[in-house]
Amino acid sequence: VSDSWLPIPADSAFPVTNLPYAATADGLVVALGDSVVDVGAVALSTRSAYVDLLAHPTLDRLLAAGPQAWATVRAEVTRWLTDESVRPAVEPHLRPRDGVELLLPFTVADYVDFYASEQHATNLGRLLRPGEPPLMPNWKHLPVGYHGRSGTVVVSGTPIRRPAGQRAGPIAGGEGGPTYGPSERLDIETEVGFIVGAPSRLGEPVAVDGFAEHVFGVCLVNDWSARDIQSWEYRPLGPFLGKSFATSISPWVVPLAALESARVWPPSAQTPLVPYLRERQAWGLDIRLEVRVNGELVSRPPYRSMHWSPAQMLAHLTCNGASLRTGDLYASGTVSGPRRQEWGSLIELWDNQQFLADGDDVVIAATAPGPGGTTIGFGEVRGQITPT
Amino acid sequence: VSDSWLPIPADSAFPVTNLPYAATADGLVVALGDSVVDVGAVALSTRSAYVDLLAHPTLDRLLAAGPQAWATVRAEVTRWLTDESVRPAVEPHLRPRDGVELLLPFTVADYVDFYASEQHATNLGRLLRPGEPPLMPNWKHLPVGYHGRSGTVVVSGTPIRRPAGQRAGPIAGGEGGPTYGPSERLDIETEVGFIVGAPSRLGEPVAVDGFAEHVFGVCLVNDWSARDIQSWEYRPLGPFLGKSFATSISPWVVPLAALESARVWPPSAQTPLVPYLRERQAWGLDIRLEVRVNGELVSRPPYRSMHWSPAQMLAHLTCNGASLRTGDLYASGTVSGPRRQEWGSLIELWDNQQFLADGDDVVIAATAPGPGGTTIGFGEVRGQITPT
Repeated sequence: VSDSWLPIPADSAFPVTNLPYAATADGLVVALGDSVVDVGAVALSTRSAYVDLLAHPTLDRLLAAGPQAWATVRAEVTRWLTDESVRPAVEPHLRPRDGVELLLPFTVADYVDFYASEQHATNLGRLLRPGEPPLMPNWKHLPVGYHGRSGTVVVSGTPIRRPAGQRAGPIAGGEGGPTYGPSERLDIETEVGFIVGAPSRLGEPVAVDGFAEHVFGVCLVNDWSARDIQSWEYRPLGPFLGKSFATSISPWVVPLAALESARVWPPSAQTPLVPYLRERQAWGLDIRLEVRVNGELVSRPPYRSMHWSPAQMLAHLTCNGASLRTGDLYASGTVSGPRRQEWGSLIELWDNQQFLADGDDVVIAATAPGPGGTTIGFGEVRGQITPT
Repeated sequence: VSDSWLPIPADSAFPVTNLPYAATADGLVVALGDSVVDVGAVALSTRSAYVDLLAHPTLDRLLAAGPQAWATVRAEVTRWLTDESVRPAVEPHLRPRDGVELLLPFTVADYVDFYASEQHATNLGRLLRPGEPPLMPNWKHLPVGYHGRSGTVVVSGTPIRRPAGQRAGPIAGGEGGPTYGPSERLDIETEVGFIVGAPSRLGEPVAVDGFAEHVFGVCLVNDWSARDIQSWEYRPLGPFLGKSFATSISPWVVPLAALESARVWPPSAQTPLVPYLRERQAWGLDIRLEVRVNGELVSRPPYRSMHWSPAQMLAHLTCNGASLRTGDLYASGTVSGPRRQEWGSLIELWDNQQFLADGDDVVIAATAPGPGGTTIGFGEVRGQITPT
């Protein structure tokens, strides 16, 4: 890739090899250095063939256009930003990145959350089911997951109102029944999300190697969790109101094409698997996350430690014939690495003693290695807790 | 209500007190006797104020219009069908009900499935967790539920392809791991579904008595379930691929307004409950279901036996601040009454020995008491099993 005609700091997480997309009321933008490029406006002013895909206030049309279009649009946007002869047409559509209002980047169809970190599943199993084996017998055989609420997926920056809900009474079987009130154990889950562009047909599973034909890109996810609500409600049908009040995602969507240098084999490649989960292309990702609460770094979860790759998750999600729609979002589950300072939720990190207070501000950010020593940034997903 | 100018058999489940809506490519229709009335076409030809709501190939606009509009549109359609002076304008838009192609009636936003039958939860608990108490400690305190896949909700008549999936190996901890293949335990779940019209705001729970301000109407649901896939995957995060391959709904949506004579107090009214679940208006419903497999009647599940009312389910669904969208669908969970011949899934009825074969045709139908001794029909939800 040529360099951009725009001077970009060498340590920028938004080099021309990245070009993540975000949505504004005026159309799509891509990030470049400390700027955004209003690619919707460029497409309009240059009468680009891609104006319908780019001059639109969500990524929905671009997602639906499919992998060939994703590649040609990315090549065209790259040309706009690297070809000096196009510079006069593009430069008027640069704006400082700070202060641009970024919207929910796409219309979320179905939202699925996985549980793909062995360390996280082990940590949670120990906390929630003391005395029992922390991992269920199925855990190493399939990526455990469940459906979440797509209607409450919100973009970074949306205030997160502390949920109220039912919590277990004083003691199980003892005096007093459950009570309803504001959650006293409000937590985060540091996750990575995958966004489906190209749909699939009902009854036709997507093969594990078909991942890049369907998934457009990657965002950051904070799957807010009310642990007291969750632990009372979750048996036998899984998490529901402990999660459904809000899920925050980053406004920037990093195309898979920007992550070629970040691909690694996931740990599950070393284990015996049923055929539909055996991947022949490495789709683990070396994404390095950072979690800050009120500005203080509390964890650095390493996505590369996740047992299951996003390609395996997608193959599993569809192995029963379930169809995909444009805008389906599936998240990895909490990213927790083997070391304590790599755990991605507060219930793990803080020994179940301390949770989020009203006013707390949580920021999850991430980077991955890019081509030629560049860094691929994901921006951040942020949320501040407001009272019930 | 006056009688219709159209002669309707006395035992019809589609009297003028019912008027369920369905969607066709040409606009909305209502059922009347053995006919459908193309109310979209009537609205167009009479230049009705409601043409935008009715001359549309889904119920989406009518749903979004809210409870005032639901009442005025219903009054207007009733006038069309009872006022002799309007007859000449309406009669050209009658068609025989048989043979009309009915579409998925609305765009499904989020899909939630509850577990509101005490008998069903008890039956399933005994089968899945032998030796443990069949009901979890939370069951009588809240309506247990979980999110399902809205992208695979299909209309009655859609063929149901037998899902494949992972099943547990020969024995837990013994020789051989899990295998992947067509489900050998494909089952039904006989349910009733509730369709949200008017949305709510994030962070603002809907009170139990706000039910009729948000829910437009009722449909029938068959929540197809692959028991072998479900039993292997479901711990600890609940059902996923055992359900997500398909959920069938009836094309007819019965407005709440047609069910006034069917309202009863649910059994939970007799139990101590946290305040947000205490309903002051009876929203249990005396809906009488019938399940037929290949034409043979196998069960008559009584909806009135459901422990939790749909108003309680809605209050619970939103008690954490989760918002509602137009098109949200929530289902009751399997309806199983206290007697064996009232159980609503095959795993209960057939002692876990026999499940659906390829070619099997399942029909769930229902009626409820209407005003003045009339019968309110729901039509049916049908599906035939095709091979993997």
